[in-house]
Amino acid sequence: MPLTASSYDQLCQAARDINLLQSASAVLGWDQETFMPAKGIEHRSRILAHLSGEAHERMTSKRFGKLLEQAEVETKRAAETSVAKSNVTQWRREFDRATKLSKKLVEENSKAISLGQAAWAKARGESNFAGFAPHLEKLVGLSQEIAGRWGGKNEPYDALLDQHERDSTAEEIDKLFTALRPHVAKIAQEAVAKSKAEAPSEKAMLGNCPVEKQQTLNREVAESLGFDFEAGRIDTTAHPFCSGFGPGDVRLTTRYDERDFLSSLFGVMHEAGHGLYEQGLQEKEWGLPSGAAVSLGIHESQSRLWENHVGRSRAFWEKWYPRATSLFPHLRKLKLDQFLLGVNRAEFSFIRVEADEATYDLHIMLRFSLERRLFSGALKVSELPDAWNAEFEKSFGRTPPDDRRGCLQDIHWSMGGFGYFPTYTLGNLNAAQLFSAAMKKAPIRKGADKGEYAPLLGWLRENVHAPGSTLSPAQLMEHATGRNTSTAPYLKHLKARFL
Amino acid sequence: MPLTASSYDQLCQAARDINLLQSASAVLGWDQETFMPAKGIEHRSRILAHLSGEAHERMTSKRFGKLLEQAEVETKRAAETSVAKSNVTQWRREFDRATKLSKKLVEENSKAISLGQAAWAKARGESNFAGFAPHLEKLVGLSQEIAGRWGGKNEPYDALLDQHERDSTAEEIDKLFTALRPHVAKIAQEAVAKSKAEAPSEKAMLGNCPVEKQQTLNREVAESLGFDFEAGRIDTTAHPFCSGFGPGDVRLTTRYDERDFLSSLFGVMHEAGHGLYEQGLQEKEWGLPSGAAVSLGIHESQSRLWENHVGRSRAFWEKWYPRATSLFPHLRKLKLDQFLLGVNRAEFSFIRVEADEATYDLHIMLRFSLERRLFSGALKVSELPDAWNAEFEKSFGRTPPDDRRGCLQDIHWSMGGFGYFPTYTLGNLNAAQLFSAAMKKAPIRKGADKGEYAPLLGWLRENVHAPGSTLSPAQLMEHATGRNTSTAPYLKHLKARFL
Repeated sequence: MPLTASSYDQLCQAARDINLLQSASAVLGWDQETFMPAKGIEHRSRILAHLSGEAHERMTSKRFGKLLEQAEVETKRAAETSVAKSNVTQWRREFDRATKLSKKLVEENSKAISLGQAAWAKARGESNFAGFAPHLEKLVGLSQEIAGRWGGKNEPYDALLDQHERDSTAEEIDKLFTALRPHVAKIAQEAVAKSKAEAPSEKAMLGNCPVEKQQTLNREVAESLGFDFEAGRIDTTAHPFCSGFGPGDVRLTTRYDERDFLSSLFGVMHEAGHGLYEQGLQEKEWGLPSGAAVSLGIHESQSRLWENHVGRSRAFWEKWYPRATSLFPHLRKLKLDQFLLGVNRAEFSFIRVEADEATYDLHIMLRFSLERRLFSGALKVSELPDAWNAEFEKSFGRTPPDDRRGCLQDIHWSMGGFGYFPTYTLGNLNAAQLFSAAMKKAPIRKGADKGEYAPLLGWLRENVHAPGSTLSPAQLMEHATGRNTSTAPYLKHLKARFL
Repeated sequence: MPLTASSYDQLCQAARDINLLQSASAVLGWDQETFMPAKGIEHRSRILAHLSGEAHERMTSKRFGKLLEQAEVETKRAAETSVAKSNVTQWRREFDRATKLSKKLVEENSKAISLGQAAWAKARGESNFAGFAPHLEKLVGLSQEIAGRWGGKNEPYDALLDQHERDSTAEEIDKLFTALRPHVAKIAQEAVAKSKAEAPSEKAMLGNCPVEKQQTLNREVAESLGFDFEAGRIDTTAHPFCSGFGPGDVRLTTRYDERDFLSSLFGVMHEAGHGLYEQGLQEKEWGLPSGAAVSLGIHESQSRLWENHVGRSRAFWEKWYPRATSLFPHLRKLKLDQFLLGVNRAEFSFIRVEADEATYDLHIMLRFSLERRLFSGALKVSELPDAWNAEFEKSFGRTPPDDRRGCLQDIHWSMGGFGYFPTYTLGNLNAAQLFSAAMKKAPIRKGADKGEYAPLLGWLRENVHAPGSTLSPAQLMEHATGRNTSTAPYLKHLKARFL
């Protein structure tokens, strides 16, 4: 029996209207990072605070609560796999969370984020932690208050994790990371040594890479993966990101190094992976949980899959190396094999976003540990630079020369994105597991030009993108690969690539 | 006695919140024209419709109405010059107008505008009126419905005029235009003949003008006028415009002709004139009528003043010609006197935005006449191309070769901007009158580089920008120049420039 119940339908409409406000906020957030003039920040933060306050007010309204209760009754007897039932379950989660926060708190947090981002950008530029510290204090304080109201499963920080990665806890992530760490550390050590011995010099990889030529290549590559430029674009920002505004409009950003085209290319492949997920969500489900990405750990699996499993592979460069060489003639000095050793050079870097696959997770584990301590109260904001440097020394054997290359390097905390970092390593694990499953069913065709990645994208569309949030991250992984997130495929991949 | 009344204060807060939504819409509208990918249009129109529906709902809410009534009582005994009293009067105007429209009608109109703009851009590109006609039918129908509900003073079209130019009527504008027309037509005729005899060939004015060099000059010029680039920027669009998002963020757009740098330069000076007005509104009054531009006829006076009275003058080019020549060496062939004759060449053009000052108003009078007939029912949308061409033939002695250079050339109708065009000629009249008054009090200093225009800008800030909407257009003109909008200073200017 199809659901014709009007409470559910009205709830869908209310949710879509809330999402229209969030779409507007997404456009304004993107503009803030790409084109907004400096003096626009105060007013921008007021607009964003007002929009998020308004969205929150609607989400927590008596009407929404009432419709939700009625829709729960309507869908009570529906099958567990019913989209309506799944949407209602997600709305209950969101509603219960939202009603625990006052509109004032939501607006205050939105404003602190908007101002925090601008302060962070300035502080990072000047490597001046003191300029960002009061903002970070404020942001941590607000997130502590929010986490306290939500209540985490075992600790407050769990509430923040759960927001980004449904059902996850710090304890479980700690378990996963503890299992992963010795293997990753060992692979990293060996990979760095191997790169030192075998990879071409860093200088040999660099040359004159005019921005326009990089943009040409990036666009050709993103198109070949299946990114639709009539429904999206690429702009330049200090910190690359992807923002899906809704059907037909997904924005990627990147930044350029005029000596190294690989930096923006892998940045674009990464963000295009996010963008393909957004473009693969079902348009007719837009504004409902069934039309929304399920979690950051799944989102990141898509970016890492295209960036690393596709983009850093021999197969990819067998096709694209000639094109890259024609655009960047300094590559002529390198044979493909040498170039690949350069592409997959492992080395200990201060900067997470520049880190290779072999060392990346060590950066994430550091952040996870610090965040967890910030939220348990074991670590104060003022102690962060020292704590960062000490942890870094332990993992990488050196100390960042300044905070710009230390605790000021990432945008996330300035956006109130606590509990976000661990999803990057979850993304790595998921990417390897999904790619390995996809290659059995939908291997990449060689040399079929634009259709080369169509089978892989088709498999991801069906198994990862189309379900939206109707499956939990764990259900999605089981459905697509036969088991929940595990470390084995990832470790296998790292060994094959680096050892 | 200062007003401490809480209803007025609450009303200010409510108005500011509504304006935050309108700021968001302005950013989204700007993005739609500058950077939005093609497939984003449907979703974008949904967001914009929702935001304008929401703003309308708040403006027409019982709460707003109640606060307004109470604030009217509170300000009853305030002086006529009181800012609070003036704001309350403006809100009453807006409230009475808004409550005559249903939310559904407002949303429908917003959506029709968003879709209409996209359809117009396509139809203009293809010179295919049939592709735009159904949208125009829809837009005219909606504006007819809106005008009918508002009620015009003498005719429905008056209601649309009044929206853009407070207190104006078609009858008065017709009277002004009828007085102006024979003089303008005569000046145009003579100016065209004079240009033909004396001005350098069109080809001599053209040359290689790379976009980046145009951007360099445009930016230098806009800065020298006083435009603050930390609180604004210039982007590229099909149809140039200026949009003020709020304090610290005013966006200009232009378009480039790689043979003719003057096209984008005068475009930028024009839009910068609008932008200087927006940047000159009082930040502390933002979101209230006292912090908003008063009318399109005053807004346009600012763009025309900087574009024409400053930008097309000998004094301006005495300073800027050497710089232009260094950027665009083809100018070396022309002496300054010849170049000025080229800058102020008068000729009959099909395209309004390319028209010189001598012929510009004839384009406006044509549009005013057609619009008025569209809204009186004397003209059908389907008859528009023929009616346009017939009127054009009467004014200019030739017929546009296609609709792209005829009735499809302007963006305004696709934005539902009926009653907008007449304000362009009002702007010309006001510009001449204001400039003439300003030159008596605050003449332009020569050669003082960046401060050159500071006295003029200061005078405009004080007499035109700072009052916001506390004065009506007529009051503002009287306050600044001693009399209401008249034709004499403008005709004097045209004669001095062209004859």
